[in-house]
Amino acid sequence: MAIVVQKYGGTSVGDVDRIKRVADRVARTHRGGNQVVVVVSAMGKTTDDLVSMASRISETPPERELDILLTSGERISMSLLAMALADRGVAAKSFTGSQAGIITDAVHGKARIIDMTPGRVQDALDQGHVVIVAGFSGVSQSTKDITTLGRGGSDTTAVALASALGAEVCEIYTDVDGVFTADPRIVPNARKLDHVSYEEMLELAAQGAKVLMVRSVEFGRNHDVRIHVRSSFSYTTGTMVGPQEDNVEDAIISGVAHDTSEAKLTVQGVPDRPGVAARLFSTLAEATINIDMIVQNIAADGRTDISFTLPRGETDKARAVLEPLTDEIGAGGILVDSDIAKVSLVGAGMKTHPGVAAKMFGALSAAGVNIEMISTSTIRVSVVVAKDQVETAVQAVHAAFGLGDDEVLAEGAR
Amino acid sequence: MAIVVQKYGGTSVGDVDRIKRVADRVARTHRGGNQVVVVVSAMGKTTDDLVSMASRISETPPERELDILLTSGERISMSLLAMALADRGVAAKSFTGSQAGIITDAVHGKARIIDMTPGRVQDALDQGHVVIVAGFSGVSQSTKDITTLGRGGSDTTAVALASALGAEVCEIYTDVDGVFTADPRIVPNARKLDHVSYEEMLELAAQGAKVLMVRSVEFGRNHDVRIHVRSSFSYTTGTMVGPQEDNVEDAIISGVAHDTSEAKLTVQGVPDRPGVAARLFSTLAEATINIDMIVQNIAADGRTDISFTLPRGETDKARAVLEPLTDEIGAGGILVDSDIAKVSLVGAGMKTHPGVAAKMFGALSAAGVNIEMISTSTIRVSVVVAKDQVETAVQAVHAAFGLGDDEVLAEGAR
Repeated sequence: MAIVVQKYGGTSVGDVDRIKRVADRVARTHRGGNQVVVVVSAMGKTTDDLVSMASRISETPPERELDILLTSGERISMSLLAMALADRGVAAKSFTGSQAGIITDAVHGKARIIDMTPGRVQDALDQGHVVIVAGFSGVSQSTKDITTLGRGGSDTTAVALASALGAEVCEIYTDVDGVFTADPRIVPNARKLDHVSYEEMLELAAQGAKVLMVRSVEFGRNHDVRIHVRSSFSYTTGTMVGPQEDNVEDAIISGVAHDTSEAKLTVQGVPDRPGVAARLFSTLAEATINIDMIVQNIAADGRTDISFTLPRGETDKARAVLEPLTDEIGAGGILVDSDIAKVSLVGAGMKTHPGVAAKMFGALSAAGVNIEMISTSTIRVSVVVAKDQVETAVQAVHAAFGLGDDEVLAEGAR
Repeated sequence: MAIVVQKYGGTSVGDVDRIKRVADRVARTHRGGNQVVVVVSAMGKTTDDLVSMASRISETPPERELDILLTSGERISMSLLAMALADRGVAAKSFTGSQAGIITDAVHGKARIIDMTPGRVQDALDQGHVVIVAGFSGVSQSTKDITTLGRGGSDTTAVALASALGAEVCEIYTDVDGVFTADPRIVPNARKLDHVSYEEMLELAAQGAKVLMVRSVEFGRNHDVRIHVRSSFSYTTGTMVGPQEDNVEDAIISGVAHDTSEAKLTVQGVPDRPGVAARLFSTLAEATINIDMIVQNIAADGRTDISFTLPRGETDKARAVLEPLTDEIGAGGILVDSDIAKVSLVGAGMKTHPGVAAKMFGALSAAGVNIEMISTSTIRVSVVVAKDQVETAVQAVHAAFGLGDDEVLAEGAR
């Protein structure tokens, strides 16, 4: 019998009626002859509500306690779903991350899975139960404390369980039909992708596509788990995330992602000496500030500007740790620009197709969009633009590469 | 350093501001040089809200899942309290019942503690932490599933921890100043007791005094844990529950309890043969229906009526299991009376003072209250009366024994 892992996000289990609908779908998969493991997030805005309560108690709540607090949300949704299944005549058992054997390091708030021991899950499956597992949570191997995997961690829970149990597929249910060539709210003719490779999905996720979290895709790639991203509101096929060789479409470009959550920080007049940049970024790393794009200009008069992007919420913290350092190394000063957006073009095919970046820059120029920073990987080109130009930029790039529903055949024929 | 266990109920941690106030009190006890273990219930109406969600999902939710659901309430309050303490500069760690080593049997919804292994609690205390433990919850020794100890189970958690840790005292914080000679809402001059013996407290709790749950008192008596019942809204001394020999007051009567939550069920015309009553009550026991008072009249014409009281919510279930049996044994029929109340007079001194029951019946008669059933123990006399006469009955008995604030000296002088 095949094992199917299904993950339902907070919107899908947002209230009692939606939990009943999820139960109908799970029951259908179970009756179709599958062993089903369901991973659930907390209901709707529960996690936000809990965070807000914590912030009313303390400005800096201890992370160990925050993890205990937040995991109560999944506890509610998982037990309610088990009840709804029982009510439909389907025996179900729910387990916390700890009970399901999701063993992590001790980094509260963004723990990493270091082992999977889902013996109780397998036993319950063998007894004919549907198994429900709390997403997002685990238990620290060293301290035995409850940990969380960070926002979106339920995706990782699902993929990790699918891997550990040898599941046929990991279905990630969401409120959209799959992965699109661009955000359909910005590009109305954006096309749903039938298949996307792990590498492309990684780049799309890292560059702002919110449908899957980066770490879950990494886990899927490293453990060869097929991920089916699909809607919990319909039965249509979504997007299959898998190895490159499955990609029969062979398109050059898979999509355009955008991200408006970052800010740009520039350290001006940095002395152009070996080791200075290293000190800058090791200082930021010690403060656990996640840096994204980095650009360093050519030095003039022995000095250079170093710019990088980072989550907007971390700019104050970055400024605080960098200011003593800039004084010490004799840099000019720190500039922060919060009104930026990142637009990224992703596609495995661009590896073998030169000129993709040039075509993208040309399209942006023609649309009157100024490029502030550029960063590339083998399958991605990202640019930073002014925040108020993000929609124009996404639409221009999407159209230039003919990614839309009407245009894709023409593009394929070129 | 003395270990103090403090338990705060749902009202005491009812909202964020109240949690902060509890944190102030805990911090004060900690700074006073004590090792403090705090047991918390779920915030305010959380448990009721969760039960109501469950009932919207299923009429008969599986008890294993209901226990998982309900324990999320304590998880929220315990982590928030830990945050509030950290915010006050007091290091605190919260633990679930399972983490705190509260080992139970596998009877979901009303599990019994069968072992205590609070190693993690002791370690955290030794490291200088205040320890917060989720009340009401444990973990099954056999299935490793999460269990709950039943409503009011947080009191039991607190007393059990106090015993296992060798605490100096177990303080139960509530919204009243202690244990009273009667419910002050019914008897305005009811007097707070400074001390009450375990046995008397057991009888008072069993007979409807809601300030402490029976099982926690039993646990305290069996393991010799001093229980201090006091208000979380003031710093005045409450009522100390302890061994009989401590009782310096030496009052004949400690108080009048009443209970309006029961109904009376009568099986009429039961054949007066050996074994018939045993079958009746073993059938009820198998259906896990808790029976309280039982009265059997003298048989006439080979038949008798058997009456008993039970929680009002269980009368339908009791009728359902008894109806086939009454047919089989040829009994006459089943009568249910939901409009009853139980009034109990409790006092260790009545063992050696004959005439207490007679004086109580006389007072009720003088007040025009008819007695429907009578049940006694060595330190208690209980009567069942019509529900609409409960206040009259409590007031009459309280006054007859001079238990009020103005009358107690007079009584003592008699």
